[in-house]
Order: sequence, then C-alpha cells, then structure tokens
Amino acid sequence: MPVSTRAGTGTNQEAVRRHNLATMLRSVHQVGRTSRAHLTTTMALNRSTIADLASELEALGVLRHADPVATAPRAGRPSAGIEVVEGGPDVIAIDVGVDRVVVGRVGLGGRVLERAQRQLPVSPDPRDVGDVIAELVEETHQRPGGPLVGIGVSVPGVVRRTEGIVQFAPNLGWHDVGFAQVVADRIGRDVPIALGNDADLGARAEHFRGAGLGVDHLVYISGDVGIGAGVISGGAPLGGAGGFAGEVGHMAVDPEGLTCHCGNRGCWETKIGADAIARAIGAPADSVATLGAVLDAYVDDAGALDAIAADVGRGLATIVNMLNPQVVVLGGFLASLHRLVGADIVREMHDAAMQAPGRMVKICTPGLGQNSVLLGAAELAFEALLADPVGVLA
Amino acid sequence: MPVSTRAGTGTNQEAVRRHNLATMLRSVHQVGRTSRAHLTTTMALNRSTIADLASELEALGVLRHADPVATAPRAGRPSAGIEVVEGGPDVIAIDVGVDRVVVGRVGLGGRVLERAQRQLPVSPDPRDVGDVIAELVEETHQRPGGPLVGIGVSVPGVVRRTEGIVQFAPNLGWHDVGFAQVVADRIGRDVPIALGNDADLGARAEHFRGAGLGVDHLVYISGDVGIGAGVISGGAPLGGAGGFAGEVGHMAVDPEGLTCHCGNRGCWETKIGADAIARAIGAPADSVATLGAVLDAYVDDAGALDAIAADVGRGLATIVNMLNPQVVVLGGFLASLHRLVGADIVREMHDAAMQAPGRMVKICTPGLGQNSVLLGAAELAFEALLADPVGVLA
Ligand SMILES: [Zn+2]
Ligand SMILES: [Zn+2]
Repeated sequence: MPVSTRAGTGTNQEAVRRHNLATMLRSVHQVGRTSRAHLTTTMALNRSTIADLASELEALGVLRHADPVATAPRAGRPSAGIEVVEGGPDVIAIDVGVDRVVVGRVGLGGRVLERAQRQLPVSPDPRDVGDVIAELVEETHQRPGGPLVGIGVSVPGVVRRTEGIVQFAPNLGWHDVGFAQVVADRIGRDVPIALGNDADLGARAEHFRGAGLGVDHLVYISGDVGIGAGVISGGAPLGGAGGFAGEVGHMAVDPEGLTCHCGNRGCWETKIGADAIARAIGAPADSVATLGAVLDAYVDDAGALDAIAADVGRGLATIVNMLNPQVVVLGGFLASLHRLVGADIVREMHDAAMQAPGRMVKICTPGLGQNSVLLGAAELAFEALLADPVGVLA
Repeated sequence: MPVSTRAGTGTNQEAVRRHNLATMLRSVHQVGRTSRAHLTTTMALNRSTIADLASELEALGVLRHADPVATAPRAGRPSAGIEVVEGGPDVIAIDVGVDRVVVGRVGLGGRVLERAQRQLPVSPDPRDVGDVIAELVEETHQRPGGPLVGIGVSVPGVVRRTEGIVQFAPNLGWHDVGFAQVVADRIGRDVPIALGNDADLGARAEHFRGAGLGVDHLVYISGDVGIGAGVISGGAPLGGAGGFAGEVGHMAVDPEGLTCHCGNRGCWETKIGADAIARAIGAPADSVATLGAVLDAYVDDAGALDAIAADVGRGLATIVNMLNPQVVVLGGFLASLHRLVGADIVREMHDAAMQAPGRMVKICTPGLGQNSVLLGAAELAFEALLADPVGVLA
C-alpha cells in the first residue's frame, strides 16, 4: 500500500520513499510492463512523485522507460510506459521434485532466463541433490547476467522456513534435513536462501501472475507422486498454526480404502496419487515419477480413467465445500489428467459439491504451465529485493 | 490497534481519540474487568491519556472504576481497576436452532442478563419463528435495562449478511428468506440487526472469550442435527469467496455411504449427524432435534457409540490435515458426545491425522458451555458500539 505524507520528519520521509519504491517495483515486476498513468492511479500519488520514483528505480538498474502503453479508450493519448530491465537483478529458483530437480535463473517480471533439469534417483541423499543443484546452477549461469539477489528452493514436503529445514518429505524419504544449508554450501553465493513447500509456492505464483491473478481465494493442487495443496484465502496464504495446512492428499475419503504411507486408510492420495493412476492405465510402476509425461502421451479410449476422474471430482467437492475458493488450479500430473478427463472431473465435482460454493468455482490448469512451482520459488527469492530495493541494491 | 499522533490536525485528533476509545472499550468488554496499567501497556499510550479515555467512557455510561487489580508481582502496588458497568448498553442475541430458539439479553463483558427458550415445530414458517422471537424478547425485557444498541441473529444455514437473507437452511427448510426484516418487523426497535451462521458465530465467541482465547487458528464444529464449522485462521474468520466455507458436514468420507440431503453420497453428516447417532443408540427418531439432552442422559455400556467415535475422529483428522488448527471446539450435541467417548475420538483423530498437525491440536468442548452461539450473535450486535462508542451513544 503506498503511503503519502505531507509533513513528516526526515526519517519518516525516507521510510515513505523506500516504501513507495518497493510498491512501484513490485507492481511492475508483477506484470512486466505497465504505464505511468496506471501507477499514478493504483498508487494514489501525483505524476511528479511517480516520475521521481521511476527515475530512482531506473538509477538502481531495475526499471526502464518503455514505449507508450495504450490506456483505456476514454483516457486520451497513450501514457509513458515503464518495464523491468533486461540484465537486471535475477534469482536462482530451484524446484526439487520427487524424481527430478529443475533450476532456473529468473529475472524481474518472472521471466525464466535459463532453465536446466536433471533426473534424481529414488530416495536421493540430500547432499547428492545439493551436488546436482550446484551443477545445474553452473549450467544456468554460463551467460553473464545481472546481480544475483536471492535463492528460492521448493521441496515436496513440510518445511520450517525460518530454520531452513525440510521437516518431512515422504516421497523423498527426508526427515529433518537442513536443506537450506546444504544448498547454500554447494552454491557458495552470499545471498539469502529460502525454502518453501511446492504446493504453497505453486499457489503463490498462480495467484501472483497465473490462473489466479486478481482472485482472492485460490487452491493450487500439486500432483507430484503425492498430492498436496497450497491455499490462498482472502488474498493471503492459509498456513495454519504450524504451516502444515493444505494436506489434502490425506483427506480420509474411504474407510475401506488402501493404507497410505501416512499410516491412515483410504486417503485421497491412495485414490488419485501417481501409483493409483499408473495402476489404472496399466503403466509400469517405474513410470510413477514421470506420470505427467506418460499421461500426456496416453489415449483413454476404454474409460480406464473413469473411476479416477470420479475420485478427483469428489475430493475437489470436499475442498470446495470446506474452503469455497474461486479457482482451483490442478498442477503437476493432475494438469495432464485434466486434459484427458477434465469434463468428467468437473461434472463429478458439481454433482458432489454444495450448490452455492460449487457454482462459484472454476477448475483449471496452471496459467504458468510447468513453471508454477519454479516461479513461486523465484518469488521467494525476490522477496528481499521487492521489500526494499534500495537496501538490497544501493 | 491504538493510534498515537504528535501533531495532527483537529480532525485527525478527533478520529484518533474515537479510535482509541473504541479500542479501550473492546479490550475491557472482552475480559469484563482489567487494570489501567494493563491498558497502558497493551494500548501503548501514556497513563494520562489512558485516564482521559477512561473518564470519557465512564461519562458515556459503559465503563467504571473498579477495585484495584493485582498486577504481576514485580509490578509493585496494584493498579486502578476498570470494568464494564452494570445496567449499561445491551443487545438482543437470538440463536435459532433446528428445534428451538433461544433469546438472550446480553450486556457488555458478554454477560447473559436474561435468557429464554422455546421449542419450534418441524420446518417452521419464518414468520412464526419471528412471532416466537418477539414473545421471548418481551420475556427477557421485563426488567429495565440499559439502552439497546443492536440485535444479532444466528441461523443454522448459509447467510448473506449484508442483505439480511438466509440463503439456505436445510434443516429448517428455508430458502432465500429475508429473515432480518422478519425479525426487525416483529421486534419493532430502531437498532441495527445482523444475521450470522451458527458455526461462524460459535467460532467467533469461543475465539473471543472461550476455549480459543489467545489462539489464532481455531475450528468450531456445530452439532445441531446437521454438522457445520466456523473457522478462524490467522486470527480472522475463514469465509471463502462467498462466505460458504466450513461446510465440513459435507466432506465426502465414504463412497459407499448413505445419500445426504445435499444430494451427495457418504457425507460426514450422514455418519455423525444427529440421525446417525440416534440410530446408533436406538433413540426414537423424534429425539433427533434434542439429541444433546438425550446424550447427556445416556450411558454407553455396550459400545454403541464406538463406530460413531471412530467416524468423528477420522473426520477431525481430515480437518486437522487441511487446516492445521490449534484448537477444535466440539459444540452442540458433539459436546455431549465428547463427554461420552471423547478419549476414543481423540485417539482415532491422532491415529488418522498427519503427525505434525496432529501433535499441535487440542480437541475440546466449548469454554462458553451452551452459550457459544448466543454470545457470538451478541458480538454481532455489539459491533457498531465497539467500532465507535461515541457515535452510537453520544
Ligand atoms: Zn495419507
Ligand atoms: Zn451432504
């Protein structure tokens, strides 16, 4: 929120100016390019203040003038444009999946400048994953770039962010791993490093610039062997008391169901997780980790996925009844499943959900394609810069 | 949050003063009685400002001096006390249940000054309920009281608060009923009237001064024929996009289960709702609406409630996995059930929940006894006064 003051002390004025610089940078970073007129309106500041702030962010090497941007028809002539610079500050975004790790160099505006990927063995040692990450970071930094301002790491598990610890990542076999330190040691750059949960980061990115742009209530469901969710409620992440909220994979949906690795019986994950889908389509067990690719090549001509679609729809109905979101984004292999049987999933969800919340929700695939989680990790890494660009760059 | 200013304009000073008056009144209203020293600390204002604010609230007839209150041992002599007045402003709180309506006259500090209750017929006409409410309001206003400042109404259904409409109350058989207007017409007092959902109001009251006091993540589960939940997350109500969040009664927990009145199969409500419990203990069907009282007199010596306890525990585990609350309050007949088989419920919840969120949660009965929902309705009615006592009373 921009802050304006008429007669503050020198210290207050400085704090207000830095706050406004952060707000402007964040606004342009979100969309990549906009007009000064738009910023004048949304930040509720006058044109000369906006011009001053823009000049300062240009001097810091993060924004630059752009061609005029057409505004609304009645607004008259186009307004001066402003956009993120190329070659400005960037971050390292790391998406550790169950079977593979992706490393991206991501610039302002959420541009994936470089991207590299490597397969992982089953139940990988955290130090080996750290080594793989270090190699991928080298690969993605062969061309010169701007100053590195942060590292963000996504993990498919429960994370204690402030301590940099992966508390529990069942599908990696990790318990209480100080993974932030492992990565920091391997990469050896003196920038902040932050960990996040894959589904939470997917939700964050889809909310910030994907399928949930402009929406206050969103659920992002990650399908990466297991099933998890990141929830945005009232515009803010729903973490719960300890950051553990969103474990939708372990909703108890069938008292007669299979035993889950969590110890419970009949979890949603036992019905719609990668193992269950691989069984349903007769795919080999070792294809579980790459199920998205398998599904992308699959033709469902015998209804092998009918029961899966019904179980996905019924589980979504429970989520819709409990959280009343506007958008549910199906990520990972669930996006591939949506392409095959999306209509069945949505019909079953509508049949099973209460009418009022069912009518409000849109079920969709990610607006950011395969990069939702990676871009969420990038946002984690950009946090310090976006909170105070002067403090980080000057 | 108290606001302090050093050099504002006259208008700003007035706004700050009214804001601080509201903050102080709300603080004392929450606990009933406290010390000036405590207010000085929590409001971060100096003692003379606190004294001025206290005088003004005394002049408005809402607070008064009280005996000195002992403060922490090292704080020296006891500080001057301050408390809500008797005979000050009060509200009408109305709790419409499926089988009965309760009306309370509630004073500052959440004191239930008068309380009257009447049975309702099955699927009552909203106008008839309005007539019953009007009679109960007469009963509870035979003794003189302070100025009436608001009316709050709880309904077991989905409410569109701003329009005063009950959109859907399945166990009353109501659809799109303009119930705020019905009540306003019958009571005929010129004060604001507000509607809320029973579980949301139970959560609000338990969070404000009950079992969830000082807790930021709470779920209140109402058992009143049907099952619903009010959720507080991060200290604020979780409403979802349309205020429909918290429909935990319609979690799909069994694909082979009974058909629910919502149209879905195997909802949690079909397993642990009043009908299911009445069947399990062999109670007559017409005891469903008064199940809490039936359970309070019941002795479970043959394990008739074992399966119910397991289903309650499993459903709670799903809620715990999804929302990671610190406290789950079991209200209505679920409180009575907790007294009978609480240990079984908690054990099953721990067996079925993920370890991390399971360890953090406490399952308990309401701190406000039978009055959680009624006191939540009272808070709804006190909102205007607590937002601006000067505006309402001066
Ligand atoms: Zn499980
Ligand atoms: Zn139902």
